[in-house]
Amino acid sequence: MFEKILENVAAKTPLVHCITNYVTVNDCANILLACGASPIMADDSGEVVEMTSICSALDINIGTLNQRTIESMHLAGQKANQLSHPVVLDPVGAGASSLRTNAAHGLLETIHFSVIRGNISEIKTVAQGNGTTKGVDADGNDAVTEDNLEKVVAFAKGLSEKTGAVIAITGAIDIVADAEHAYAIRNGNALMSKITGTGCMLTAVIAGYCGANPDNLLDATAAAVCAMGLCGELAFDKLQKTDGGTSTYRTYLIDAMSKMNTELLNGGIKIENR
Amino acid sequence: MFEKILENVAAKTPLVHCITNYVTVNDCANILLACGASPIMADDSGEVVEMTSICSALDINIGTLNQRTIESMHLAGQKANQLSHPVVLDPVGAGASSLRTNAAHGLLETIHFSVIRGNISEIKTVAQGNGTTKGVDADGNDAVTEDNLEKVVAFAKGLSEKTGAVIAITGAIDIVADAEHAYAIRNGNALMSKITGTGCMLTAVIAGYCGANPDNLLDATAAAVCAMGLCGELAFDKLQKTDGGTSTYRTYLIDAMSKMNTELLNGGIKIENR
Amino acid sequence: MFEKILENVAAKTPLVHCITNYVTVNDCANILLACGASPIMADDSGEVVEMTSICSALDINIGTLNQRTIESMHLAGQKANQLSHPVVLDPVGAGASSLRTNAAHGLLETIHFSVIRGNISEIKTVAQGNGTTKGVDADGNDAVTEDNLEKVVAFAKGLSEKTGAVIAITGAIDIVADAEHAYAIRNGNALMSKITGTGCMLTAVIAGYCGANPDNLLDATAAAVCAMGLCGELAFDKLQKTDGGTSTYRTYLIDAMSKMNTELLNGGIKIENR
Repeated sequence: MFEKILENVAAKTPLVHCITNYVTVNDCANILLACGASPIMADDSGEVVEMTSICSALDINIGTLNQRTIESMHLAGQKANQLSHPVVLDPVGAGASSLRTNAAHGLLETIHFSVIRGNISEIKTVAQGNGTTKGVDADGNDAVTEDNLEKVVAFAKGLSEKTGAVIAITGAIDIVADAEHAYAIRNGNALMSKITGTGCMLTAVIAGYCGANPDNLLDATAAAVCAMGLCGELAFDKLQKTDGGTSTYRTYLIDAMSKMNTELLNGGIKIENR
Repeated sequence: MFEKILENVAAKTPLVHCITNYVTVNDCANILLACGASPIMADDSGEVVEMTSICSALDINIGTLNQRTIESMHLAGQKANQLSHPVVLDPVGAGASSLRTNAAHGLLETIHFSVIRGNISEIKTVAQGNGTTKGVDADGNDAVTEDNLEKVVAFAKGLSEKTGAVIAITGAIDIVADAEHAYAIRNGNALMSKITGTGCMLTAVIAGYCGANPDNLLDATAAAVCAMGLCGELAFDKLQKTDGGTSTYRTYLIDAMSKMNTELLNGGIKIENR
Repeated sequence: MFEKILENVAAKTPLVHCITNYVTVNDCANILLACGASPIMADDSGEVVEMTSICSALDINIGTLNQRTIESMHLAGQKANQLSHPVVLDPVGAGASSLRTNAAHGLLETIHFSVIRGNISEIKTVAQGNGTTKGVDADGNDAVTEDNLEKVVAFAKGLSEKTGAVIAITGAIDIVADAEHAYAIRNGNALMSKITGTGCMLTAVIAGYCGANPDNLLDATAAAVCAMGLCGELAFDKLQKTDGGTSTYRTYLIDAMSKMNTELLNGGIKIENR
C-alpha cells in the first residue's frame, strides 16, 4: 500500500540532517543509506542552520543531549520550520531526567514537529507539557496491548491534534496517528529490544521517508514503522537459520533495510486502520 | 561456580549508567544488553545525578574524556556513592597524558570505586597516586606473565587495600583481587586486542554484573572477566570455521555474550585462586 | 609494488592519533587495528599535544567538528608538525557549511599537511583558499571520469605544489598526486558509498601507512587507497556468495583489511602512473 512512499525515497535520495546521540549515530547513518536516504550529521550551533538548509528533513534525537547541542537543536529546528522541511523528534529518555523532559518540552514550544516518535512512556512525557498543565491525558499503562489499544489510539490522536505532529508510539504494537486517522501496526520482533538503537534507527528512517514525502507525513511515517518492523522479522528469520546472537541480528536488521522494497513490504505488512 | 552471579543479572536486568567514550559506546551498549543488563548513556552535568539515581550501577570510562565530562563523572560518582551503587572505573589511557592521569587520580580522591579495571600500565598509573607520593609499589614489567604473576597479585591486593576497590588487571592473564583474595583467570584470545573496545566492553559488563550483585563485587567482577574471556574464545572458535576477519570477530564476540549462561561459563572457565 | 610500505606497517605498528567524528570513529579505530596500526582517539585541548607526541601520525577529520575540537585540531596539528609526524586532513563536508570550509582553510593556514584526502568537491573547496583568492583552479565537474581525468590530475598536482601535501581525490577513479607524480587507481566498488565511513576509514589507514613510512608519503597514500579499494572489491565478491546487505558488506570490508597483505594487494591492484 505504500508504493508511492518508497518510490519517492528511491527517486529523491533525501538528505537527512541528524542531530543525534553518539551511541547509535553510526547505525542511524548506515540505516539511512540502507533505506535509500543519505545522512548528514552536524551539531555545532555555528553550522546547523546551513546544514539543515541543504537537507530535505531534520531528525532531532535527544539521546545524549547536552547544553551545546540543545541550542543547536533549536536553531536547526527553527530553520527547518522556516523552510517547511519535515522535522522529526525522538524524545529519547524524556521523563528520565528533568534536563531531557525540559529539553523535549522546550523544543516543542519553539519548533513545529512533523512527527514525534517514542515509546509510550516518552510520548506521555511529551504530552504532559511544561509546568503544571497536564495537557493531553495519558493512559496510565506503560505498554500498548490489545486491551488498551483503543485508549492509546485516542491519546495519540489527541496529542496529534494538540501538536500538529504525526504521533508514532512504538512497542509490541505500534500506533501511528494524526488527528483524524490512526494505524495499528503489528510488525516487529521482540529481539529488537536486545540491541541498542532500533528506536533511533526507526526515527532516522521516518525522517528519510518524510523528507521524500513531505505532503504525506502520516503514510510516510507508517511506511517507515512497517518497514523497520518487517526488517526485524526478516532479520529474526535469518538468525534462526544460523547460530548468531544479538550482534549478528543487528547486522541482519540493517541488511534487511538495504533490501527492502514495495514487494517485500506489501508481502509482510501487518497494518490496520483504527 | 558463578551461578548466583548470573542468576541475579538475569533476574534483575540491572540498569547501568555509562559515562563513556564515543569510540566504543555502541559496543558497550550492545554488550550490556547482550549480557542481560540495560544501558543508559548520559554525560551532561545537568542530568547525570538524576540518571545515575535510577540505575543500579555506574560505569565511568575516561576514554575520550573532556573538561565537560570530567565534571559529570565527579557528580555522578558522588551521587552513586551516596546511594551505595557500585561504581566501576576504566582509566583508559591513564599515564598517556597528564589530563587522563590527573583525571583518574582526581576521581579516585572524591569517589569510592567498587571496581577498577585496566591493563597493567593503566592500573600502575592509578596506583602511583597524585603528586609525589608513590603509593603502592608497582611491578616494573608491562605484561602479566607466569613469571611475575605472584608480584602482580600482591600489587593488586595492595592496591585494593589502599583504594577499597576490587582491582581487575586484564591482559594475557587476568588478575581480579580484593585486599584478601585474588583470582588468576586464563580465559581469552589474542585476537581480542585486534578489535577496539574489548576492555571498555568488559568494564561495562563488570558494571552490569556488580549492579545485580552489589554484595559480592569480587565474584561479580571475576565472573564478568571469565565470561568476556570465554566469549573471546568461543568467537575465535567460530571464526576458524568461517573465513572471517576482525570485524566478524567483533560480531561473534557480542553474539557469544548474548548466549552466555552458567552451563557455558562453567564448561569453559579457567580460574584459580591465588 | 608496495611491499616495503606494507612491511613497515607490519614492523612498526604505528600509533595513530585521531581527532575525528563520532559517526565513524569506531570503524576508524577498527580498521586501523585491522591494517596493522593502532588507534588513539583524544580530542580535549588539554591532552591532544601530549597524545600526538607519543604517536607516529595524526589524522584530523572534521566530520562532526565543533568549536572545542577545532582548537584541539590546531594544537595537535602544530605539535605534529614540530615533531615531523605525518598529518593527514580529511575535510569532510568542506563546502557544505561556512564553519567547515573556514575550519579547513584555517587548519591549512597553520598546519602543514602531509596528505589531504577527500572527494573532488571537498578537495576543490580546500583548493579555493580563504577569502577572495581563488587559488588553484578547480575543474568544474563533480566526479572524476575518464574524460576529465587529465584535468583532475593536473589540478591535484597543482594543489600539491601549492600545499606541499600529497593530494588524494577519491571517487570512482582515485587520484593520488604530489607536485610531480600522480597515480590513477581504479580499485573499489560502488557499494562502498552505501555504507557510512569508507572515506573516513581510508583516511585513517592513510595516516597509519604514512606513520610507518614518513619518508615515502606518496606511495604510502597510494598503497592505502589501493588496499581500501581492493578490500571493497573483495568484500563485494564475498557478499555475492551470501545474501547479505550493506551492514554485512561493512563487516566484510573491515575483515578484508585485516587479511590484506602484499600478495593480495599485488594480485588485485589497479594502478597506473599519470
